[in-house]
Amino acid sequence: MSEVKQKALLAKHAARVTNVLTTEQKNIALAAIADALEHATNEIIEANAIDLKNGKANGTSQSLLDRLLLTPERIKGISDGVREVIALDDPVGEVLAQFSRPNGIQITQKRVPLGVIGMIYEARPNVTVDATALCLKTGNTIVLRGGSAAIASNKKIVSIMKDALSSSDIPYDAIQLIEDSDRASVHEMLKANGLLDVVIPRGSASLIKTVVENATVPVIETGAGICHTFIDETAQLDMAIAIAYNAKVQRPSVCNAMETLLVHERFAQNHLAELIKPMIEAGVELRGCHHTKAILAQFNVLEASEQDFATEYNDYILNIKIVGDINEAITHIRQFGTMHSECIVTENIENANEFLAQIDAAAVYHNASTRFTDGFEFGFGAEIGISTQKLHARGPMGLPALTSSKYIIKGSGQIRQ
Amino acid sequence: MSEVKQKALLAKHAARVTNVLTTEQKNIALAAIADALEHATNEIIEANAIDLKNGKANGTSQSLLDRLLLTPERIKGISDGVREVIALDDPVGEVLAQFSRPNGIQITQKRVPLGVIGMIYEARPNVTVDATALCLKTGNTIVLRGGSAAIASNKKIVSIMKDALSSSDIPYDAIQLIEDSDRASVHEMLKANGLLDVVIPRGSASLIKTVVENATVPVIETGAGICHTFIDETAQLDMAIAIAYNAKVQRPSVCNAMETLLVHERFAQNHLAELIKPMIEAGVELRGCHHTKAILAQFNVLEASEQDFATEYNDYILNIKIVGDINEAITHIRQFGTMHSECIVTENIENANEFLAQIDAAAVYHNASTRFTDGFEFGFGAEIGISTQKLHARGPMGLPALTSSKYIIKGSGQIRQ
Repeated sequence: MSEVKQKALLAKHAARVTNVLTTEQKNIALAAIADALEHATNEIIEANAIDLKNGKANGTSQSLLDRLLLTPERIKGISDGVREVIALDDPVGEVLAQFSRPNGIQITQKRVPLGVIGMIYEARPNVTVDATALCLKTGNTIVLRGGSAAIASNKKIVSIMKDALSSSDIPYDAIQLIEDSDRASVHEMLKANGLLDVVIPRGSASLIKTVVENATVPVIETGAGICHTFIDETAQLDMAIAIAYNAKVQRPSVCNAMETLLVHERFAQNHLAELIKPMIEAGVELRGCHHTKAILAQFNVLEASEQDFATEYNDYILNIKIVGDINEAITHIRQFGTMHSECIVTENIENANEFLAQIDAAAVYHNASTRFTDGFEFGFGAEIGISTQKLHARGPMGLPALTSSKYIIKGSGQIRQ
Repeated sequence: MSEVKQKALLAKHAARVTNVLTTEQKNIALAAIADALEHATNEIIEANAIDLKNGKANGTSQSLLDRLLLTPERIKGISDGVREVIALDDPVGEVLAQFSRPNGIQITQKRVPLGVIGMIYEARPNVTVDATALCLKTGNTIVLRGGSAAIASNKKIVSIMKDALSSSDIPYDAIQLIEDSDRASVHEMLKANGLLDVVIPRGSASLIKTVVENATVPVIETGAGICHTFIDETAQLDMAIAIAYNAKVQRPSVCNAMETLLVHERFAQNHLAELIKPMIEAGVELRGCHHTKAILAQFNVLEASEQDFATEYNDYILNIKIVGDINEAITHIRQFGTMHSECIVTENIENANEFLAQIDAAAVYHNASTRFTDGFEFGFGAEIGISTQKLHARGPMGLPALTSSKYIIKGSGQIRQ
């Protein structure tokens, strides 16, 4: 039996135990994991050093090495993250609906765990712990498949977490790490219907694409964000500057950052230079339509291609397009947006409502930065990911996204007529 | 451009209109469709006669021909079905959550239509109308791909429905029928990411399997049901007889009918013959384990193979297995069940609760027939299908299963710190 099949099967059997544990039982296990990770800081850093050394030898970029790096502070932060999950409400067992029918049967719809969750991600060892904590809190078990560049760190972390379970009612097998670094193991997970109940990819657009295109197991798609901010004719200048700057510059590497700024032509004629000046000062490279280039002739604006408008830069690069009206803005977003987060800045309430209704995205904003699309910012207290699909969960996902439901029907001998 | 791409694109554009219609606007369209279908009874029957003639010439089985057949009564029933959908609550626009954050942003989570729904089904012209009515009611548009054996009926029905839209605010393009009978058109729909928001297969296990294995578009999986009824040691004999008989015989062709009867050995020793007698009288063929064959030596019981326990007969055939206790029953269901509907008949409350908690299925029953797993029986008033997957919707699906949600965030210039 392959490693994936074997470990998924162990996780499936363990799920029969975890699925019916109380919140208290699950929290005890999470506390043990948090403590164990913190106590093993030195061991983890030693294992992490192996990954870093290999990464450097392989010419890994500095930004990837930084994502891979674990320090005592980061390990403390990861452990505290687990403790925050303890404090969250447990959605399992929640009664979603309860009713009886004329024939006397009583129907209760209850939240239940999904079962076994497959997590496919890149070389970020913190995801190993975050994802495990969220899955265990919701009564699920987990099969982890992290990037091979973090394998030494992940093996150490998973071994510490599994050992920590011995003082709890969660079985040792509830956490599984796929160690095979071959891509085939990812593809095997994607086809493991009957063993994995869902696969969640976290990472680059290409990883997510691979998963969506190849999975027969249900997927919760997260991530890709080509987000727009539309500055309407009546936008307040100060507010427009602040929101656009925040959406682009505060953290360009994340999915809810702005990639394209759409500006109403009358606003642009008067204020475009002022609007983009703080971004230029922050080092943002501009790519604009012809009209933009004409208005910003004094700046170094490259010409934006169709391909640029379809690119998630995750970087200090911004597309700018001047539009004639809100309809042109909506049309552009429909063509290039990824249904993640879209914003209109306007004082015109009719236009705001039109935008909020017409734009089909996980989160639509009026006069606030798209950077708020986030589980913590929404007050969900945990970050499983941001769903950009329409089924099951859409937008920032709290713990309920890791649950399913079940109808429980109690009768006294009723049969169907 | 292929037929699928072209029609899906038209449906996608139409969805931008239907997504924001009021309930009143949608109901006017549905009423027009119901009336138009009824008025066109003769035309529909003429078209249907072509399909029936071709079906007979191709040697189609009598039961498939019966599913294909339209009569004035059936067309009246189909039209009345549309009128029933008018009476249902419109889930679109429902506020699912509303809260504000310390920084003052106001977040509202609202139900929105899914967008464009692809429906892949077999030669049942009633599904053409049922599915369209449910999708339009929820503000979606629909791309229909029915079995080629019903193509003349479907073309006529769709043309009548589209014409009926002219007196409403729903665009003509909101209903699309794929006429290409080649299997390739199904596969193209399954890969139409960005055009179709979801695909729902309705029909045989093999159709559903094809869809699940090939789709990159999200799928709502419906259908396959290998359902069990477990008669525990303490079951009341009369109740056990009534529930088992109902689950097997009342309508064997449907997914919530029982395929395997599990019987506690002590109950079986005393009552098995009495339990199965009414089923034998109804013409049910029995396939049993060794123990069953020994107890029922006076009856003609075939030997049940592993393959039998894994088969959804949808017919007058029943597997019987004697089990030592509830755990053996649970283990059997875990191995062979399809997580659809599972039942325990017992007077032992502890065993009932154990069964209801341990069995991972869309619907779990204590002392009631599995035949109740149904949108109408649950009081949802419509039958989109019964989901056997764990994401998005599980069990009988009401109109909310055809919706997604969207976060609407209103601010006054908030930016992320």
